[in-house]
Amino acid sequence: MGVIVQKYGGTSVADIDRIKNVARRVAKAHDEGNAVVVILSAMSGVTDNLIRMAHQVTEDPARRELDVLLATGEQTTAALLAMTLISMNYRAESLLGHQAEVLTDCDYGRARILDIGADRIRRLVDAGNIVVVAGFQGCDLNGNITTLGRGGSDTSAVAIATALKADVCEIYTDVDGIYTADPNICPKARKMKKVSFEEMLEMASLGAKVLQIRSVEFAKKYNVPIHVRSSFTEEEGTMVVNEEADMERLVVSGVTSSKNEARIAVKGVPDQPGIAAKILTPIAEAGINVDMIVQSSPTGDTNDLAFTVPKTDYKRAMEIERNVARDIGAQDVRGDDSIAKVSVVGVGMKSHSGVAAKMFSTLAAEGINIRMISTSEIRISCIITDKYAELAVRALHSAFGLNSE
Amino acid sequence: MGVIVQKYGGTSVADIDRIKNVARRVAKAHDEGNAVVVILSAMSGVTDNLIRMAHQVTEDPARRELDVLLATGEQTTAALLAMTLISMNYRAESLLGHQAEVLTDCDYGRARILDIGADRIRRLVDAGNIVVVAGFQGCDLNGNITTLGRGGSDTSAVAIATALKADVCEIYTDVDGIYTADPNICPKARKMKKVSFEEMLEMASLGAKVLQIRSVEFAKKYNVPIHVRSSFTEEEGTMVVNEEADMERLVVSGVTSSKNEARIAVKGVPDQPGIAAKILTPIAEAGINVDMIVQSSPTGDTNDLAFTVPKTDYKRAMEIERNVARDIGAQDVRGDDSIAKVSVVGVGMKSHSGVAAKMFSTLAAEGINIRMISTSEIRISCIITDKYAELAVRALHSAFGLNSE
Repeated sequence: MGVIVQKYGGTSVADIDRIKNVARRVAKAHDEGNAVVVILSAMSGVTDNLIRMAHQVTEDPARRELDVLLATGEQTTAALLAMTLISMNYRAESLLGHQAEVLTDCDYGRARILDIGADRIRRLVDAGNIVVVAGFQGCDLNGNITTLGRGGSDTSAVAIATALKADVCEIYTDVDGIYTADPNICPKARKMKKVSFEEMLEMASLGAKVLQIRSVEFAKKYNVPIHVRSSFTEEEGTMVVNEEADMERLVVSGVTSSKNEARIAVKGVPDQPGIAAKILTPIAEAGINVDMIVQSSPTGDTNDLAFTVPKTDYKRAMEIERNVARDIGAQDVRGDDSIAKVSVVGVGMKSHSGVAAKMFSTLAAEGINIRMISTSEIRISCIITDKYAELAVRALHSAFGLNSE
Repeated sequence: MGVIVQKYGGTSVADIDRIKNVARRVAKAHDEGNAVVVILSAMSGVTDNLIRMAHQVTEDPARRELDVLLATGEQTTAALLAMTLISMNYRAESLLGHQAEVLTDCDYGRARILDIGADRIRRLVDAGNIVVVAGFQGCDLNGNITTLGRGGSDTSAVAIATALKADVCEIYTDVDGIYTADPNICPKARKMKKVSFEEMLEMASLGAKVLQIRSVEFAKKYNVPIHVRSSFTEEEGTMVVNEEADMERLVVSGVTSSKNEARIAVKGVPDQPGIAAKILTPIAEAGINVDMIVQSSPTGDTNDLAFTVPKTDYKRAMEIERNVARDIGAQDVRGDDSIAKVSVVGVGMKSHSGVAAKMFSTLAAEGINIRMISTSEIRISCIITDKYAELAVRALHSAFGLNSE
């Protein structure tokens, strides 16, 4: 008998009919002789509604209480699915975060899982039950309810799969797998059969919203295979697994783009030790994440330093840098929030040279100017003007041989 | 410093504005130097909506899971009120049933409180917090969520008040107290300043819906004074307390009526020992509550036996009795669901004779026929034709000197 953990996202449980559809899928896996543990999100839209309600009370709701409020969403779907399975004559029981012993730190709203004491789940499963766990929620050492942040149900699922030593963690969502590029941008994008944890991590951090980054980190750490698939079809989706010898050996596995960043350049910075820290520390202290940082080679005795921040923090970051520029005697601060980041990702890059050169020449051939570059072991990203983002994705997708026939 | 437990019903927390109104009341009691613990119901309508959702899944939802679902209603309001108080710069924390250590049996949907281990509430209160407890819910010894049945938040409040040895348990509702009769029926009804637990119990069981019967039993057992009042005015409401020497010494404290019952009469029953049991056991076995039972004196060698059942069980009870009548050789079964029960209640009855006679003559003077009679130490009830119910209430209210000037 295998142990299968299935996670269903908000669109898969959006109403009673869809919950009944999920129940049939769960029952099928159970009928096939598996021990099945199901992790659910809230009905789509519910979490947003609860947040709206909290904001009617106050602009800045107390985080502990917001978590108590938000946890009701997954409690509702867990109870309804268990009820549905029981009405179909299956043994089933819902568990909330604290009942499933999902122990977290007490960082409300973005708590991290410390431990899963899966004893109760295991006892219930051993007694023939289908166990339905409310995702997204846990509790701290003092029994306070915590939530794991947006997409946290993915992490709940992977963590529980780890604790149960499950054979697979199936993530059911409204797309049918991971694609080589966003099919809305690139009609020739192909669904991947397999993708490595490392590649998935890069793609998730680049804005592919299929899996929460932390769930992939978790799965990688404990080597739990994830199967991303749709709850609306029977098709196989994409397996996210450890890099294997038999993996497709393409140099580049996927192309992504994101328009969530803005660029800030501090021009004519005195070329002194510690000057980069002076520019970036105030940004960090304001809680703004910096992604790329590029420093030009000095011209005379000044430098230019450019970096990117989330578009939502752009105005605040510009104000901060205008003050910094005055303090350090820089010449100017320029900003641009009409940029896009285009990236190619692939473990194959490790053993192939010339990927960067090919990327740059492909963009050049389309007349697209590159404003900034950053790289990791398995990723190259370029900042370009945002209106070229879709064109760049299609050109790179084709150049790296990813197009479907 | 006093300890005050305040319970707010569904209409008092029906939307964010009303929750803010509740927060101001709670804050005021705290500012006056009291330790304040608040128990909340779900927003009005929410519990019914959740039940409807469960019935979309299945006609007969699993009771454990229904409780998990229903408990979200009070979780929502508790989080929102705590959030509101914190936004007003008060220290506040919400607690769910299991966090407030409301230990119950595992009779889902109508669980009984076994114990309140109020340590956590007390610690929080001692640290200067306003504690907001989700009413209606508890948990059993295995940590399963349970609910206490309709109106269960009243019982939560009284039980927590008992555990904290509170000075008073204030029940905020949409009426401003307990009246000598339903003001909708009897315009001359007066709000009572005080009413005894015994009288309140009789009135609640007769259909006065202000307090859940079990909460009154609890308060009586542990002698916790209840103050029933409105959350929409500053007026004093009605105190429900132990019978005191200084209580208003009216013979009758209140007049109630109810149209929730139906009458079944089995005619021409053989006058044999054990025949009443043969008639009523099948009704009990079908889970139907019998209220009044009247057996006429035998005429020749047969008897008539009549009893009342809830109107919702009338058809089922009639079917059962038709079968019983065949088995025992009774002549006929007759039913009537157009009846009403009119009652007068008062601890003063204990020491005054002639109350029954006055009740019967008052009804007779209005030309109202009495079909059945039952009495307790402090109550007399008559079954009459339902169309006369309002007239009967007004006539009795006047005859027993309850009318306001």
